[in-house]
Amino acid sequence: MSAPADWQPGNARTLLHTPIFEVKGIQYRHPQRARSNEFVVIDSADWVVVVAVTSDTQIVLVRQFRFGTASTSLELPGGIIDEGESPIEAAVRELEEETGFGGGRARLLGWTHPNPAIQRNRNHIVLVEGVTPTGTLGWDEHEELETLLWPVGEALRAAVDGRITHALMINALLLYDAHRRNAAGGAGRGV
Amino acid sequence: MSAPADWQPGNARTLLHTPIFEVKGIQYRHPQRARSNEFVVIDSADWVVVVAVTSDTQIVLVRQFRFGTASTSLELPGGIIDEGESPIEAAVRELEEETGFGGGRARLLGWTHPNPAIQRNRNHIVLVEGVTPTGTLGWDEHEELETLLWPVGEALRAAVDGRITHALMINALLLYDAHRRNAAGGAGRGV
Repeated sequence: MSAPADWQPGNARTLLHTPIFEVKGIQYRHPQRARSNEFVVIDSADWVVVVAVTSDTQIVLVRQFRFGTASTSLELPGGIIDEGESPIEAAVRELEEETGFGGGRARLLGWTHPNPAIQRNRNHIVLVEGVTPTGTLGWDEHEELETLLWPVGEALRAAVDGRITHALMINALLLYDAHRRNAAGGAGRGV
Repeated sequence: MSAPADWQPGNARTLLHTPIFEVKGIQYRHPQRARSNEFVVIDSADWVVVVAVTSDTQIVLVRQFRFGTASTSLELPGGIIDEGESPIEAAVRELEEETGFGGGRARLLGWTHPNPAIQRNRNHIVLVEGVTPTGTLGWDEHEELETLLWPVGEALRAAVDGRITHALMINALLLYDAHRRNAAGGAGRGV
């Protein structure tokens, strides 16, 4: 079976501008076919999710109301990466703003595409080991978060038994778990 | 720290209609605060991702061009669940349409919220064990897929080493792996 062709992007137009993303219509042309078609793409800044672990191996979780699903969700800290910020800088900032935890050693575990079919951005996963409470919170206008400390094993179970439903959080926890289990063999995510 | 409040949804308006999703502006009111605010939500049908395994423990993967990232992506089969379809019916249909594989025993492994902050829908993960080639393909107008059979272990490694970048596919593969490893203990995702 032959490899799928690379379509060529052409003109783009903004279909909708919102505070957190733009919806664009982008013309794509198939290299072997005559006509082009417009495809809809959601364009936003990159995101970051933070796996923050205390020195006594507890993971920092947050519980917050989510407007997409109109329900409360158990998650890892995280958010939108600001212009000019690195994923690690954003992770450290979001962790402290949302939970009041800071310090420790931060490094990139990897990144994913939230949905390459319709979304252009990346979600970065940052591990911060050895965090401690700093006592400084900085919630955004509509944020209201409950911070929880769960043993690593319990957080990993919550990622597979349905207590955590946010796909990008499950991703981060299971990648962290794979990373921990593979650490001896060095088969980490290549970033 | 107190639990976050449940905001109450009110009036909704459609900001943008596209062939695959609607963007809505929904008014939410905080139970203790005076004013309400509009939040942007992407509304679409539920999706399904298929972990299809042959009797000789190979996983059916597809490679296709994705318009969100303008690049080719290594993924599991899957797609949008049609009106009136169950996740398992959609999984069986998408698997055969995209790859020509069918048969076997299908069951729901679980589901996730792709992004509860801005998306309302669910992504269901269906495991189909014992699939075989049926020879029947039914690509959508703009689909062009390369089907690959990879040993389970190699597909799982691709989910953590960066070869697979689609978050929902990484989710499905790592949940399948957790499910396999936990099968003896019965700690599956509760659905």
